[in-house]
Amino acid sequence: MLLKKNIPLHYIIKDIKAELCYVLIIGFAVYYITSVFRNVIPEMPLVIPAFLGTAISVILSFKLNQSYDRWWEARKVWGSIVNDSRSFILQLQSFLSKGSEDDIKKIAYRHIGWCNCLNWVLRGKDNEALLIAYLTEGEISNIKHHTNKHLAILQLNTMHLSSLREEDKINVYAYVQINNTIMSFSNSMGMLERIKSTVFPVTYRYFLHLTIYLFVITLSISLRDIESYFEIPLLLVISAAFFLLEKTASHMENPFNDLPTDTAMNAICNTIEINLKQLIHDEHIPGPIQSDTFYIM
Amino acid sequence: MLLKKNIPLHYIIKDIKAELCYVLIIGFAVYYITSVFRNVIPEMPLVIPAFLGTAISVILSFKLNQSYDRWWEARKVWGSIVNDSRSFILQLQSFLSKGSEDDIKKIAYRHIGWCNCLNWVLRGKDNEALLIAYLTEGEISNIKHHTNKHLAILQLNTMHLSSLREEDKINVYAYVQINNTIMSFSNSMGMLERIKSTVFPVTYRYFLHLTIYLFVITLSISLRDIESYFEIPLLLVISAAFFLLEKTASHMENPFNDLPTDTAMNAICNTIEINLKQLIHDEHIPGPIQSDTFYIM
Amino acid sequence: MLLKKNIPLHYIIKDIKAELCYVLIIGFAVYYITSVFRNVIPEMPLVIPAFLGTAISVILSFKLNQSYDRWWEARKVWGSIVNDSRSFILQLQSFLSKGSEDDIKKIAYRHIGWCNCLNWVLRGKDNEALLIAYLTEGEISNIKHHTNKHLAILQLNTMHLSSLREEDKINVYAYVQINNTIMSFSNSMGMLERIKSTVFPVTYRYFLHLTIYLFVITLSISLRDIESYFEIPLLLVISAAFFLLEKTASHMENPFNDLPTDTAMNAICNTIEINLKQLIHDEHIPGPIQSDTFYIM
Amino acid sequence: MLLKKNIPLHYIIKDIKAELCYVLIIGFAVYYITSVFRNVIPEMPLVIPAFLGTAISVILSFKLNQSYDRWWEARKVWGSIVNDSRSFILQLQSFLSKGSEDDIKKIAYRHIGWCNCLNWVLRGKDNEALLIAYLTEGEISNIKHHTNKHLAILQLNTMHLSSLREEDKINVYAYVQINNTIMSFSNSMGMLERIKSTVFPVTYRYFLHLTIYLFVITLSISLRDIESYFEIPLLLVISAAFFLLEKTASHMENPFNDLPTDTAMNAICNTIEINLKQLIHDEHIPGPIQSDTFYIM
Amino acid sequence: MLLKKNIPLHYIIKDIKAELCYVLIIGFAVYYITSVFRNVIPEMPLVIPAFLGTAISVILSFKLNQSYDRWWEARKVWGSIVNDSRSFILQLQSFLSKGSEDDIKKIAYRHIGWCNCLNWVLRGKDNEALLIAYLTEGEISNIKHHTNKHLAILQLNTMHLSSLREEDKINVYAYVQINNTIMSFSNSMGMLERIKSTVFPVTYRYFLHLTIYLFVITLSISLRDIESYFEIPLLLVISAAFFLLEKTASHMENPFNDLPTDTAMNAICNTIEINLKQLIHDEHIPGPIQSDTFYIM
Repeated sequence: MLLKKNIPLHYIIKDIKAELCYVLIIGFAVYYITSVFRNVIPEMPLVIPAFLGTAISVILSFKLNQSYDRWWEARKVWGSIVNDSRSFILQLQSFLSKGSEDDIKKIAYRHIGWCNCLNWVLRGKDNEALLIAYLTEGEISNIKHHTNKHLAILQLNTMHLSSLREEDKINVYAYVQINNTIMSFSNSMGMLERIKSTVFPVTYRYFLHLTIYLFVITLSISLRDIESYFEIPLLLVISAAFFLLEKTASHMENPFNDLPTDTAMNAICNTIEINLKQLIHDEHIPGPIQSDTFYIM
Repeated sequence: MLLKKNIPLHYIIKDIKAELCYVLIIGFAVYYITSVFRNVIPEMPLVIPAFLGTAISVILSFKLNQSYDRWWEARKVWGSIVNDSRSFILQLQSFLSKGSEDDIKKIAYRHIGWCNCLNWVLRGKDNEALLIAYLTEGEISNIKHHTNKHLAILQLNTMHLSSLREEDKINVYAYVQINNTIMSFSNSMGMLERIKSTVFPVTYRYFLHLTIYLFVITLSISLRDIESYFEIPLLLVISAAFFLLEKTASHMENPFNDLPTDTAMNAICNTIEINLKQLIHDEHIPGPIQSDTFYIM
Repeated sequence: MLLKKNIPLHYIIKDIKAELCYVLIIGFAVYYITSVFRNVIPEMPLVIPAFLGTAISVILSFKLNQSYDRWWEARKVWGSIVNDSRSFILQLQSFLSKGSEDDIKKIAYRHIGWCNCLNWVLRGKDNEALLIAYLTEGEISNIKHHTNKHLAILQLNTMHLSSLREEDKINVYAYVQINNTIMSFSNSMGMLERIKSTVFPVTYRYFLHLTIYLFVITLSISLRDIESYFEIPLLLVISAAFFLLEKTASHMENPFNDLPTDTAMNAICNTIEINLKQLIHDEHIPGPIQSDTFYIM
Repeated sequence: MLLKKNIPLHYIIKDIKAELCYVLIIGFAVYYITSVFRNVIPEMPLVIPAFLGTAISVILSFKLNQSYDRWWEARKVWGSIVNDSRSFILQLQSFLSKGSEDDIKKIAYRHIGWCNCLNWVLRGKDNEALLIAYLTEGEISNIKHHTNKHLAILQLNTMHLSSLREEDKINVYAYVQINNTIMSFSNSMGMLERIKSTVFPVTYRYFLHLTIYLFVITLSISLRDIESYFEIPLLLVISAAFFLLEKTASHMENPFNDLPTDTAMNAICNTIEINLKQLIHDEHIPGPIQSDTFYIM
Repeated sequence: MLLKKNIPLHYIIKDIKAELCYVLIIGFAVYYITSVFRNVIPEMPLVIPAFLGTAISVILSFKLNQSYDRWWEARKVWGSIVNDSRSFILQLQSFLSKGSEDDIKKIAYRHIGWCNCLNWVLRGKDNEALLIAYLTEGEISNIKHHTNKHLAILQLNTMHLSSLREEDKINVYAYVQINNTIMSFSNSMGMLERIKSTVFPVTYRYFLHLTIYLFVITLSISLRDIESYFEIPLLLVISAAFFLLEKTASHMENPFNDLPTDTAMNAICNTIEINLKQLIHDEHIPGPIQSDTFYIM
């Protein structure tokens, strides 16, 4: 997540370097061609690029909204994981019979492991070794051959609760209620996987790029009477605005790309760890994650 | 679902071949008429096509948004089928009394069959024979005369659970909870059928095409003073952008058309199969579906 | 619901005949006045109608979206009636004790009657006589003096289930669960009545018409130098596009008007009847509704 | 709620009288100044007002959508009160043990009182005396010193049900279920209060008015060469369209203002009263509210 | 929350002082440069700034909508806290056995403390000392070392209810129901924290500012033939409208900034306190918060 600090210019520019080069080439090429073949190339009324600009803005506005919705949905789902995690512990503490503190602690640790595992899998940095802080070695080797490791951790917790039920440490009615909370973890997990695995319709992007280049070409023909030292920078700045918007929207479409625009999953997992450990009166509370750059992961 | 690979040009063009031909004909016809009857055909101010462009963009933006919403809703419903399927197995494992592994396996297989059957029915490729991997022959012959085969499979699972309840292998309270999950399968199934069977209001499409052609005609009259070797390609490219957007939106409106823009239902059913089989520790886990083309079905 | 068949032109035109006549009159009147009083009527810059076109498109886009939302909501609610109806039967079959087949059949028939009654009431074609296929004569005479007949049928089913509960044919916990499903029928019913009875703010429609006529007048003054055989058709076609969009949106705002753009409630009720009867293994299964025209009711 | 009858012109105009006067004054002032100081006041390119028109349409479209959402949400919440009220009676009838007809009647009357009280409070016409048709005098004096009278009535019904529970006239499980319905009344009530008490961000309105006046001024300068008998009416009509849209949106933002655009709460409360009384077979059924004007309250 | 009173001009202006200065400087600089280097600086067609205005309006409209959604979501969540708080007390009163008035009072006070603590934490004015009106000193010292103080208060209430359950003062079924209400407090709390901690994508803001300045520069070049005493104010007013809209949207994005545009959390907490205390027949009812300025906190 980008913070409200100053974003370095090179971060913004580096994504659209290629596009700006193309615009530069188009600008000079059109300038050259219109100078040389002045009689052949007819005049281009300014209404053509202006009208293309409208078409661009329609698709862009569509894309801005839908990509923001994906980004915001991802954040909401992680937010509901935070809420459900706290509720989960409060429920365990109120529904389990006295003397189950150890079970609660084990389940809570496993649950923190689940959050982190989900984070790593979404970012493509899956690594069972890191889970050692939250799961026993037996459990880790247990989930190793699972394709979907976080689902396997969730199954571990479900089975643990099921055994508590068999020992009659929890009332059947309350048990079903806790099961509801676990089902909502399963839901949240699946929703994040859906956002991750569903590609935003790529054709819209192609049409957008196509239309922007068409816009640049027609605009540069229209402006051929303007001096090149004035026209080329103008073309660059205007097309840069379009490309930057398109690029930003593309980044937000998939908020689990290990990029600065990602959902701040590390920070969220850290918050969950602090909250849960304080709720179970654990002693090893980690400090909050600090960011010394313009984003937080 | 289209992937982020290079989409072949012929895939993009082939949908709008007819429309581009009409535009070509209009372009030449107007060029010819305006050359011959120069004094009869009055000048067309450029503001008329520009203004029609605005009208087009309004309807187009409406259509882009609504068709994306349908596509995204379809994906969401399939996503919730994935989530509920996993939850379903976890619930069975925690609510059924010990020693019900065989029942769980049968129900899980039947459920995978339900997912696949729903996929095939939506794509109009219904074929009971394929269900043999998941259902017994008796069950298949049982559902044969049902109009709605996936509903019949769901009834089979409901009845199976009902018999488990009668054998008292499951607590009534937990039974009602599992029933909730089955109801949500029934809901998801109905939502997909709704998207499939509800035609997007066709009149909007007619108006859109009408307005695009009107735009092409007025624009070509306005540009009559520009050389034809310059004007016709311009007409083609601009109208192509509009038609492509309209076509893409039309494809997304109905994401179960056996087209590359479909919801990737095969891949989703495959994921469900892998997940469920790993949860019940089945031995025959299929590999994940790979795509060697620019889309995944 | 309009189908993807060819929509006859007269269906599209007949709704806007009056408006097109007005436009024709305005066109000729302005043409006449500007010819005769050439010196008195000043020139109208084209930017005025162009600008009014933008204002029109803003309100139109607002209206398109909101009316589509109403239409889609209506379809969604009917979709959830389909889903809940199937779930309802599955619940009855799994929760009622063995040997309740006759009760289930009676309740299912009454429920199909409820769906049809709701359909007829929404379309203003209420007729108790038609209910004879689903209810007993005693029940029909019972609901006769009710203002809200479908609510009365729902009460009949509620009371039937209540008596089953008293005979202890259903567990209290499962009974409450089924009650939930009945409550969701009550909800869906009320939501459809809401869409039916809430008039879309009419003032927006007046402003839209006002602005379209203002647009036509200013545009025709602006174009006074263009020959009338060219200008009048142009005015007609452009204003027709606006009026058609407005009219289509108006039709979709209220999808229970007994018009071709209606939600296909007959087809939906037919689907429910087929599904429910197959679920209870009834013998008299009706065939699916076919349409031999460009719409389905 | 405005009906589909003819809305009198004076109703539409009276809201924007002040604004139209200002526009008239601006029109004449600019006309006078540009005539006298012709050399001092430079020409204004028409693109400036056209461009301001775009800015206006952006904010206006934003405001139209959000205010419609508020209005529609208010209608939805009242719709869900209707649905829940019917469900409430059906639940009481199926969950309370036989012979509780009198209790049901009392609760139903109190509930109708709650609906009406909510209606009156939202419209700022709170008057306990009117409640005498639905509550006993003791109850009315009981709720007198409550700030939030409808909440107090809800508490009365909750306590009544609680006493029925203590007399064991209702199963604990069904009791909790009914409690859910009461909680949803509490929710609906709070949602309406939220819409009532949350002021739509007023700054947007100021900017909108500011921009419309700026538009009028620049437009009148641009059109200074047009005759005043032509320009002033044009200014008036165009700005009237903007102001009317803004005013209508403002009315819909707060649908509990005792204005014709209000949610038709009287009619809704009347429907609830008829439905509930028919469900409990009451004898004194009121007739439906008729409207002999262009709106219904 | 801004009220419908007159907003002082200095409040509106003070946020955009810096931006207006830059515009002033740009205006004079361009005026000077274009006067001196008349032959070097080419003409700028007005279509360029007009077109940039369209781009601005697209991003602005996107930002207006999304920031309003955040603001409205914040208000909705606080609204549901109000509703759930009332429901909470009604549930306690109907589910707890007779003679628990003292427990209810303690829980209610603690809950009011929770609301206020949440308010203070969101505004960054966290101060345990203020909680003394609602919690005992022991409880305050108990929550002191918690990072998330409102979560700790929620845990206190959960534990209190859990002990009531152990004393069998509440049925297990009703207990789970009340637990649901507590879970929804946990949800609301987390949703507010999400809105608070998620920064709206800052890049959009940069592009918006960039495009507005580009617009100002190109517009001032285009208008260079207009007298400066006319052009500069025009530039100022138009750019002020854009900057004000952007600033207002930015304020609404984060409604917990201790600014006048904030959600009126003090007033909401006050309402909750009055409602809850009247429901438990407390004697010390605070008066409603009055505002003597143009906003309410």
